[in-house]
Amino acid sequence: MSVLLERLRAAVGAANVLAEGDLSAWEVDWRKRFHGRALAVVRPGSTAEVAAVVRLCAEQGTSIVAQGGNTGLVGGSVPDASGSQLVLSLARLDRVRAIDAANLTMTVEAGCVLQRAQEAAAGAGLLLALSLGAEGTCTIGGNLATNAGGTQVLRYGNAREQCLGLEVVTASGEIWQGLSALRKDNTGYDLRNLVIGSEGTLGIITAATLKLQPRPAALLTAMATLPTLESAVELLGLAHALLGPGLTGFEVMNAFSLDLVRKRFPALRHPLPPAPWTVLVEQSDSEGEAHGSQALETLLTAALERGLIGDTALASSIEQANAMWHLREAITLAQAAEGPNIKHDIALPVSAICEFVAATDAALRRALPGIRLVDFGHLGDGNLHYNVQCPEGADATEFLGHEAEVNAIVYDAVSARNGSISAEHGIGSLKLGEMTAHKSPVALAMMRAIKAALDPAGVLNPGRVLPPPATR
Amino acid sequence: MSVLLERLRAAVGAANVLAEGDLSAWEVDWRKRFHGRALAVVRPGSTAEVAAVVRLCAEQGTSIVAQGGNTGLVGGSVPDASGSQLVLSLARLDRVRAIDAANLTMTVEAGCVLQRAQEAAAGAGLLLALSLGAEGTCTIGGNLATNAGGTQVLRYGNAREQCLGLEVVTASGEIWQGLSALRKDNTGYDLRNLVIGSEGTLGIITAATLKLQPRPAALLTAMATLPTLESAVELLGLAHALLGPGLTGFEVMNAFSLDLVRKRFPALRHPLPPAPWTVLVEQSDSEGEAHGSQALETLLTAALERGLIGDTALASSIEQANAMWHLREAITLAQAAEGPNIKHDIALPVSAICEFVAATDAALRRALPGIRLVDFGHLGDGNLHYNVQCPEGADATEFLGHEAEVNAIVYDAVSARNGSISAEHGIGSLKLGEMTAHKSPVALAMMRAIKAALDPAGVLNPGRVLPPPATR
Repeated sequence: MSVLLERLRAAVGAANVLAEGDLSAWEVDWRKRFHGRALAVVRPGSTAEVAAVVRLCAEQGTSIVAQGGNTGLVGGSVPDASGSQLVLSLARLDRVRAIDAANLTMTVEAGCVLQRAQEAAAGAGLLLALSLGAEGTCTIGGNLATNAGGTQVLRYGNAREQCLGLEVVTASGEIWQGLSALRKDNTGYDLRNLVIGSEGTLGIITAATLKLQPRPAALLTAMATLPTLESAVELLGLAHALLGPGLTGFEVMNAFSLDLVRKRFPALRHPLPPAPWTVLVEQSDSEGEAHGSQALETLLTAALERGLIGDTALASSIEQANAMWHLREAITLAQAAEGPNIKHDIALPVSAICEFVAATDAALRRALPGIRLVDFGHLGDGNLHYNVQCPEGADATEFLGHEAEVNAIVYDAVSARNGSISAEHGIGSLKLGEMTAHKSPVALAMMRAIKAALDPAGVLNPGRVLPPPATR
Repeated sequence: MSVLLERLRAAVGAANVLAEGDLSAWEVDWRKRFHGRALAVVRPGSTAEVAAVVRLCAEQGTSIVAQGGNTGLVGGSVPDASGSQLVLSLARLDRVRAIDAANLTMTVEAGCVLQRAQEAAAGAGLLLALSLGAEGTCTIGGNLATNAGGTQVLRYGNAREQCLGLEVVTASGEIWQGLSALRKDNTGYDLRNLVIGSEGTLGIITAATLKLQPRPAALLTAMATLPTLESAVELLGLAHALLGPGLTGFEVMNAFSLDLVRKRFPALRHPLPPAPWTVLVEQSDSEGEAHGSQALETLLTAALERGLIGDTALASSIEQANAMWHLREAITLAQAAEGPNIKHDIALPVSAICEFVAATDAALRRALPGIRLVDFGHLGDGNLHYNVQCPEGADATEFLGHEAEVNAIVYDAVSARNGSISAEHGIGSLKLGEMTAHKSPVALAMMRAIKAALDPAGVLNPGRVLPPPATR
């Protein structure tokens, strides 16, 4: 193995091959559920160096885990426990290569932190419309490798929809130069979308050309209370009809989600009283503040007339809007403070959500009396973070012992309604077993054939995304 | 071979296996450039029957050309001249299976004509935002197999972006049930986008779940004359900034394009005088006619103040708007009436278009004095139909003898600017040679590996999209 390390040092510089000391920043995932051990951490400084590293590893049969900001939630970006996998950190490939304002595009290297890319776009008077909690740490390469979602998917789509072109190092260490900046290109198979969302198993993204948007003249935010989830779905339909493409966010929170925030962060101000359900609506307006406010007020008035909503609050400043979003984002932190919980990141057709929540809430309560349900998420995308909190005062270890049972109830209910067991977080290591249980065997066979075709030696992040074929 | 036909008759019914008589409707492409000969035309009536046909053909080593409305422009949907290929027509799979208004989706079978799908969506008060010239004949399956573009891509994307899920028969005759109706699903590789745009070479699409949009309250259309193409690009930027997501169409036409329409269709009324360039702008407004008109007027006023545009016309009725679009669509017919021409469907970064057109117009005029350039298309998408018309009075055969030379000038200029040699029409049979010349060898190798993985026996539309590897 020291031959490999020596060659890697020659390829990227000795200072960029870390094989000793505390490597836990690269070996442990963000949620600290996966503790791996790396053969070494290599930090190439260019696409050519990434290709050289891959070629050296391919020669030696050493497998590679590509890593960006290491903020993934499914254990896809840390090495396994064998000590034989190399972590390839893209952190040094962090340049904004170009911004083309007339074409509404920017080209960014994989290791560029999302927030820096957003700021560069803003500096050119444009909007990079990808936004998520980890944006201060996560990287463009990781966002694309996992097809990240976030809070503006309703209007702008997932990371996939923001990307026009990729530069990728293949499993054999070749460079696919696919940095297209085109809105239309029908010349052969869609390699870009195949690599996006493949979690480092089909190629290593080294740079991307991303779409930019004209900056909206104003961002408007409102909250409203609702008696039922059915009302929230109806309000969403009304918002689509009245706000059209201006609708950029539609988040829903059940009573317990915000109760937890009240309990754990008592200093936060809530603009609305407790209610069975609360929604947060965000609108982007291309004309300005006054026009945007009026559109939102028209929506809320129509919703009041139909009896869909109760109390409402319209943010009258950026600070108030941020405070509303902060309540939404505090739910995750409040859950952690409250104690153990079992998380799910699911998607359903919007038309199936109410029935799913009613049936699955009830099934979980029957199976585990006393559990508390934290139902919240991106209703506009049909994406719920459907989390199960430990009963008050119950034993944490005993509760977590029910994880498989809870997951089976939730995922079986999701599959029965043609939903997704991983809406925006991916599969990684965490959900491999669920892939076998819930993905169609025909789709799995196609995916395995593609993996074998593009990475026959299994160099790139092996054992992730695709479970091994069932043995009988 | 008669064994195969016998088994096919047993599988789909004798009336749905056509092996004699005039089969030219299935054997000749829409532009009548490709005259093939089919072993037979098979018209299965269900997904299970499609799968049975594929299994029978796979057993016998008979290759299959899937066909929808047969309106493709690159010879991808007709059999070769060998008489050994089967045409599998999806025409009988034409049902609208479901419309889910709350989820803003519809599920449609592959053989459903686009216009019927549009009408079904409209009947539910929603918009299927895919629109193209052939919509009265082309089918959803063909639209997706070729990733069709059209006139609303600027706002809603290509056919790819309208699709959430697919039902596909694989090369081995299995059914991949991927009719997801979800906006978010990160469970493994993006098989949907891999099959979309693969022109029947990786799987046969039998049904699709498509996104629907809220219907805009009003559609506004305007035209303006401009002194230069640079002004048109600047006007596009202004339209993005002022209309935001309301901007749904931005078409450009050079003087000769509209001169040809004037000459060949003298009865058509032109709202504007001849000018070096003319643009057609379409805006969708979610509030209504009055608000939309005002937004368009604001844009035109700002453009006038900056000296970008000359004369303007704002359609004040649906009839006037349709007449404007009709002028744009009449260009293709006027070209045909005028005589032979060499067509290109190219895409470029918007920021590179002016320099491309100036340089390539000049290079073509040097190479072939007297030629006339029909430069028009979807400027908002960076997609030009950049066509070369025979010099007035010149010999047609002599002119068409220069096709390879003309293509080389155009496609080399496109490639030098990171453009696409096929923006929305695909590759089919027509552009196989251009794929070898202009696509990266690394990308071609990845595509060939994928084709071999998903269709190892080469049953599905062999010889299309991917040129054979170069022999040395």
